[in-house]
Amino acid sequence: MTNNCIFCAIAECEIPSFKIYEDNDFIAYLDINPISKGHTLVIPKSHAQGLLDCSEEKLRALLSVVKKVAAHLKASLPCDGFNILQNNGAAAGQTVNHIHFHIIPRYNETGVELSFVGGKGDMEELKNLASQIKMV
Amino acid sequence: MTNNCIFCAIAECEIPSFKIYEDNDFIAYLDINPISKGHTLVIPKSHAQGLLDCSEEKLRALLSVVKKVAAHLKASLPCDGFNILQNNGAAAGQTVNHIHFHIIPRYNETGVELSFVGGKGDMEELKNLASQIKMV
Repeated sequence: MTNNCIFCAIAECEIPSFKIYEDNDFIAYLDINPISKGHTLVIPKSHAQGLLDCSEEKLRALLSVVKKVAAHLKASLPCDGFNILQNNGAAAGQTVNHIHFHIIPRYNETGVELSFVGGKGDMEELKNLASQIKMV
Repeated sequence: MTNNCIFCAIAECEIPSFKIYEDNDFIAYLDINPISKGHTLVIPKSHAQGLLDCSEEKLRALLSVVKKVAAHLKASLPCDGFNILQNNGAAAGQTVNHIHFHIIPRYNETGVELSFVGGKGDMEELKNLASQIKMV
């Protein structure tokens, strides 16, 4: 397997996948541990680990494919909404170190185990943090 | 408030925000209901509802800003990883109908309430689904 990367192997068809979309540079296939029906991954065929080491050009083209596949999934499944998720680093739950965008179809009638619960922020803390890290 | 959109109002500074980044077309600011320390939203100043009605050109530029801000957050907080999340539709948890990318910093030492738990898929079902919805 090329560089021991399972997603490189999928891109090179060394490992089979449930393919939804493919062009010269990108491929989309069903996640085999789906969060919801139609849960799909979109990856570039060439290796990059995550958002920060992926070239600007590749990222931009990748997002166009994500949009195209998401529009297709929404119409063809069909689903009521969808999440786009991209994890960077083990601390963020990235389990395969080959950049991938999740498209997670969502349905009004079925809940999924997908929770993003933020607490009400402390305004003083947020103000201080913004002043520490602002780029403007 | 322009078109009753709270994020348009933030972009136009009619509502204050804890701003991290700004250029002519985009703005990034702290989420006031943070999932984790440094939880940031990146939006285009001009209105679009979600991924599917946002122009290709705007989306591509938006992702470049997301990357730039994420790199900055990773270095300046610093954090160990981060999630990029973009929700489309009420069924997907979208609460403000102005496209926004979440950058959610993650830390090795602290868990956050952010769970994406998929079950092991049924291979036959996945195969059938792929053949129904494939674009290739």
